[in-house]
Order: sequence, then C-alpha cells, then structure tokens
Amino acid sequence: MRMYDLILKKRNGAELEAEELKWFADGCAGGTIPDYQISAMLMAVYFQGMSDREITEFTVAMADSGDRVDLSSITGVKVDKHSTGGVGDKTTVVAMPIAAACGLKVAKMSGRGLGYTGGTVDKLESIPGFKTSLSAEEFLKNVEQVGICVTGQSGNLAPADKKLYALRDVTATIDSLPLIASSIMSKKLAAGADVILLDVKYGSGSLMGSKEMAEKLAEEMVSIGELAGRKTAALLTNMDIPLGNNIGNSLEIAEAVQTLRGQGPSDLLEVSLDIAAGLLHMSGAGDWKKCRETAVNTVKTGAALEKLCQMVERQGGDVRYIDEPSLFESAAYCEPVLSPCDGYIWHMDTDEIGMISVSLGAGREVADEKIDHSAGIVICRKTGDAVKAGEAVAYLHTNCSEVLDQAKSRYERALTFARERPEKEPLIYAYITKEGVKYR
Amino acid sequence: MRMYDLILKKRNGAELEAEELKWFADGCAGGTIPDYQISAMLMAVYFQGMSDREITEFTVAMADSGDRVDLSSITGVKVDKHSTGGVGDKTTVVAMPIAAACGLKVAKMSGRGLGYTGGTVDKLESIPGFKTSLSAEEFLKNVEQVGICVTGQSGNLAPADKKLYALRDVTATIDSLPLIASSIMSKKLAAGADVILLDVKYGSGSLMGSKEMAEKLAEEMVSIGELAGRKTAALLTNMDIPLGNNIGNSLEIAEAVQTLRGQGPSDLLEVSLDIAAGLLHMSGAGDWKKCRETAVNTVKTGAALEKLCQMVERQGGDVRYIDEPSLFESAAYCEPVLSPCDGYIWHMDTDEIGMISVSLGAGREVADEKIDHSAGIVICRKTGDAVKAGEAVAYLHTNCSEVLDQAKSRYERALTFARERPEKEPLIYAYITKEGVKYR
Repeated sequence: MRMYDLILKKRNGAELEAEELKWFADGCAGGTIPDYQISAMLMAVYFQGMSDREITEFTVAMADSGDRVDLSSITGVKVDKHSTGGVGDKTTVVAMPIAAACGLKVAKMSGRGLGYTGGTVDKLESIPGFKTSLSAEEFLKNVEQVGICVTGQSGNLAPADKKLYALRDVTATIDSLPLIASSIMSKKLAAGADVILLDVKYGSGSLMGSKEMAEKLAEEMVSIGELAGRKTAALLTNMDIPLGNNIGNSLEIAEAVQTLRGQGPSDLLEVSLDIAAGLLHMSGAGDWKKCRETAVNTVKTGAALEKLCQMVERQGGDVRYIDEPSLFESAAYCEPVLSPCDGYIWHMDTDEIGMISVSLGAGREVADEKIDHSAGIVICRKTGDAVKAGEAVAYLHTNCSEVLDQAKSRYERALTFARERPEKEPLIYAYITKEGVKYR
Repeated sequence: MRMYDLILKKRNGAELEAEELKWFADGCAGGTIPDYQISAMLMAVYFQGMSDREITEFTVAMADSGDRVDLSSITGVKVDKHSTGGVGDKTTVVAMPIAAACGLKVAKMSGRGLGYTGGTVDKLESIPGFKTSLSAEEFLKNVEQVGICVTGQSGNLAPADKKLYALRDVTATIDSLPLIASSIMSKKLAAGADVILLDVKYGSGSLMGSKEMAEKLAEEMVSIGELAGRKTAALLTNMDIPLGNNIGNSLEIAEAVQTLRGQGPSDLLEVSLDIAAGLLHMSGAGDWKKCRETAVNTVKTGAALEKLCQMVERQGGDVRYIDEPSLFESAAYCEPVLSPCDGYIWHMDTDEIGMISVSLGAGREVADEKIDHSAGIVICRKTGDAVKAGEAVAYLHTNCSEVLDQAKSRYERALTFARERPEKEPLIYAYITKEGVKYR
C-alpha cells in the first residue's frame, strides 16, 4: 500500500477501505508514514470528510494502534465520560463521584489542559499531594476498591491519535468532524469502559461553535461507540456561558466541592446530575427519572462528597482541602472587573474569557507549560444577570501583576451589555442515544 | 507571521496577501517552515485555489526566493520556451535552433525527465560528449556567441519551487492549476528571458488532460508572465497522440535532426515552427505570417540544422551524430507490435505509451534513476492511420529483454481500433496572448 494512493483517493472524494484505514492508523502510530503525507491526508479529510463507515473503522483502527486498558477484572459496570471541553467545565469532579456513589465503577483517564480548555488532571493536581500518574495495577485496584479513580493517561493508548492530534494542532485541521469524533472515541474505546457518556458542548466557549455541528458530532460519536459494542450516549450542553462561576484549577476544585455539598451554582449541578443519571440509565439502573433521583440523593446524603474524599485520599491528596477549600493558597493579586453601566449582561464571549484565564496563569498556551493552580477568574454576573454601574462582574486572580490591566480591559470587552434581559437559552439541549435525539 | 494562520486563512477560502505569500515562499526556500505545514497548505490550495493576484504574487515570490539569471549582458532579444510535457515531445531540439537561426538569443535551461515526460537534458546527453552542466559564464558566452545554449538548471533558481515540487510529488497535489502555473512561471521568471513561449499540452498524454483545463492554465501563465514584465504567449497543442514518431532519447534526437532537414514528421515540424514563429512575433519581428515564413526558411536553407550543429559542437558534443544519426548505438532488442486487425487506429492511450517507454528503459520512475539512451519506441501507425492485421504499428527498443513481452501486450492494449477513420483533431488548437485567445 502506498500513502500517496490513499491521499489521492481521499482527495478525489472516494471512500477508504477498512484495510487502508488500518494501514494508515498503524503507519501513524509506527512512524512509518512521513508527517508531510499525514498532514496532506488530514487536510484532504478536512475537505472531503469521511463516511460513517470510514469514521467507525478508522476509530477502531486508532484504538487498536496501541494498548487497550483491560477492565475485565473489575466487578460491576465500568463507566467513563468525556467532555469536548469548555470554559469552567469541572463536571468530572462533580459528576463522577456522584456516579461512583451510585455504585458505578468510574475508570477515567483524563488529559491536561491546552488553550482555554482546562484539564481535569491539572485541576486535581491543585490538591496538594494528589497523584495523577498511577501504574495500571494501582488504577485497577483503586477503581475496584474505591469505585472511582481519575488518572492521567498511562500506557500507550491510541498512539495513532497522539500523532494525528499533534499534527492537526499545527496544520489547521482541528475542527473537522470526522477527525474530532475519531480522536475522542479512539481514546475512549482504548480506555475500556462499558458505558460512555459524552458531554458535547456548543456555543462561544466550545470547540464546535454551532449547536448543529455539536449535534452532528454527538450523533457520530454515539454511533461509533455503539458500533464498537459500548453503551454510548451524549448530552448536548450549552457552553455559550462559562459553566459555574469559577475558572482556574484550585478555584474549580473548590466550586466542585461546594456543588457536591449542594451549595454550588445550579448550572454545574444540573449538568453533573444529568451526566451521572445518563451513566446510570445506560448501566441498566432503570428509567431516566429514577436514575436522576438516585443521583440527586447522593448529593443530599453527602455520599457523593464522601466518594470524592475517598478518591482524593487514596490518590495521596490532602483531604483537608476538600473539607475546607479556603485552605487553597490564594493568588497574590485579586482585582475586580467593574460593570461600566446599569442593565443586563447580554452576551459573554466565553472563548475570550477562557483565553483571559490562560493569560492570568490558569492555563497553557503551549503543551508542557507550567500552570499556576491559584490563578483564574471568579465570575459574579453572567449572561442574563442584572448589573449596576461600578459593581463587580468578576474577580481576576493572578500571581503576575503585569498582566492584570490588559486582562481587565479584555474582560470588559468580552461582555456585551443591554437594557433588556436576553432570552434564556436552555442549559441542556438534548440527550442523544442510538435511538435518536431526545430534547429536554 | 505564523504558518498556522496562513494555512487556516487559505483553508477557509480567504486570499493571502503579498507579504504572506512572500513569507511562505521564503520559508519554503529557507527551510524554516516544516514540511508538514507546507503540505497542509498545498492541499488547502488544491481545494480552495488562488486568485489571479495571489498566483502572480506567489510566482514572483518564488522566483525571488533564489538566484535570478542575469541575461542583460547579452545583445538582442533573449527568448525561452517551456512545454508542460508530453510523450515524444522533442520540440525544444527543433524549435530553438530555428529561433536562433532567425537571430533570436535562445537562453534555455531544461530539466531532466520524470515519469513519461522526457527531459531535454536527457535527450541531448544521448549525443556523446554533450555537456549539460555549464557554468553561468559559459552559458552566457554561448548564448551571445552561438545564439543558443540549452543547459541543465544551474545555480539556485526558485528554490521555493524545488521544495514545493518535491512535496507535491508525494502528497497528491501535483494537478492543481495555481500550483502548476506558479511552479513553471517562477522558474521561467528566474531564468531571465525577455520573451517566453509556453507550449501547453492537452489530451491523454498530458498533465492537464482536458482542453479546458489546459486553456485555463495557459491563460494563467500568460497573465503571470505579462504582469511580471515579460512578453508571454502560449500555444495550446494536442497531446492526445504522441508528437512525432519516436519516443526515447537518442531516437528523439535522430527524429529532431530529420525534422530540421525537412524530412521529419509534419506534426513535430508544425508545432516547432509555430513555437519559433511565436517567439519571433513577440520579439517584434513583424506579423505572424511573416514570422512563420522566416522560420520555415531556416529549415529550407539548412540554417536551423546548422545552428543545432553549432550548439552541439560548442557544448562538447560529437557533431558526427547530428550529421549521421544512424551512428547512435541501437538497443540490443527491437521488436514490432503487430496490428491485431484490419481497420483504423481509433485512439492511442498516450499516457500509457509514455509509461511503456519508461518500462523499456527510456525514462525514470523515480528521480536520479539512470536511463537508457537507446531505449524507446518508434511508432509506425498513429491515430487515424489505416492498419492491416499482422502489420507493425510500432517497434519497441530496449536492452532489457525480460520487459519486452509485457511492454508489447501493454502497447496493444493502449490502442483502440475501429472500422472507420476517426475525425481528425486539430494539432494546434489556439494561440493565447494577453489580448486573448486566437483559435487557428
């Protein structure tokens, strides 16, 4: 097989065969196909797309290009979730302890953040002592005994995707539906869970932008997961407004803990409960309403918070920070952004707000950059909220005083004000299963 | 400037600015842009195209990315030609001595062949002793004193194009109009001639295939040349049938000599005379008819053949081979392909016939491969000719007996026969100048 012929075929709009896709995935993983041919193929796929069959076969080929995590030794239903990424998205830290408290086995490998998309691994590492590099044995043991373990990626999972992702990132081929779907799902398939819940974000703080694109992506990924023999569903959730009020690593952990105590922002709680309920529902725990109630109860009783504490303790983290989040070290500087007028917040440029948090030190602009766990943004007023001139709409936290002025004026410009209150958009737009789309 | 942004811009269908195109060309030449980003850009250009402005600016930027040949010390009008390549295309060896015999200064840098497209440099090297690597000084001196010099590319001409061409060849981005036009014209601009005649081929033995695509390419290249201050025109010529009867290096030199003697095939003579007439016409030598007559006379009087002899002698070649082409060493094997039936040749798959000549040893499958100067094909019957069963339609020449059987059966399959004579297609379809298209 020659890579040239595969590029030509795709460029001309033809479909690649299963064995061609496998050869391509293995060649990416094994380093036998030169980067310049891979990137030409990526751009050809960007323009010509892939059929459903191609996407599924390519995803499976990428999952097969490296190790697969074997969870078969663990009793019960093993569940996993994935978010396509957004600003202030700390749902893993809320939803997965709930799921574990409901008796599911949460085996989750998470990534680090890049750009405005925070990574759960970075967030958890703001808890002193918390270990995110576990051996495969530790990981399996923790899932079995505690019911939940969240770790960084270990082993050689989907190396073809690793190669492709690195090249997409520098060749302007990130936002291609078949490439996004196959990238996400190859890692999920390799990570071994029986049940996968996808949280697909749309809106100004998301990768996909439009609701329609997000819906297509969700449908595609659900189809891949089901065809590969996993129970898979997706929530379509609004990322036009940051989720919760806190952006930044320790700030988000503190907010997650608050939420598990029932004292957090309702948007974060709602999405997290729906994720947990979706996982339960797919695991055969009964109808949606019953699953939702089960999830709610773990928050009411404190069982979910207890699960988080158990996980933190088992992974070497200092549990006192969960009991008392005010222990987290504050950033040296904390300054308010003031509303310039009376009225309502009409719109937030959530993407830009994410980038501002990166500039404050809360995220990375390039891979492997160090991040500042205490930096970030605490939002006081969100889209639809009434504001008065001179009142704080957000507080910016940073250890780097020289970035503050620019961050403040960027934050101001990221907000649009109006005299009237904008119409409220639904937070959770749809629940998508292989049977179809349920609007909520 | 970041390459990522340029790829994204082009991918999204926007036009690149002059300074962005220059930065890209310089980055290709200087090796500062990684191959994987260049190839992603090439594929984006394949799909999104380039505006006329972009193509011209990019061509000039590529011409500026390396050395430019300075022909200003040479008296008279300096002329150059370029063929987009075809099977049996030895027009340079016929047309340029004619042009030189008319008093034009022919300063031509030629390439080597790749695939079925023969290179003039390879053809001339079949003359024992003929040197195609000349210093810049020798080149200029020969053009001035002899009136014609044909050499291999020397110096660092359009290194950006060199880089791009190598990547296009392995990423399925060869057949993109803006990339073809800018590649050809960047080298022509750098080569320094005042007057450029392009021979753009269409039909089954050409790169462009359809007449419409070839016409677009011709118009684009004429426009680039004129905008860059060179007199430029293009002939649109038929390459659905091999040009002349001989394919292969020494076989083609022999046929070119025959043609300059007035005893060669008429198609080769006609195209060559039109190329020379076009160059003369653009050089201000009067109306087309008069220029054509001048060209014809140089063949009649033997002045053109004499120019070829002078050039060969000056470049170290053994002139006896021009005087007596039967001196060229013959290939060890020469076998006929026989017509399977009575009737007419309805169609020749000229691309395939070119590839067969490569398999016989006359061309290269990959760069830097050695070629066999005596190998090739002598065609006896072409499209439109009557044939009788058992009669030879072509002779295959090779030094490699084991390829003969397959070559013979491929050649048979490359021909289509019919009871009726096909309608004759024009050989020269149009003459294209900046004023527009003249059909002939």
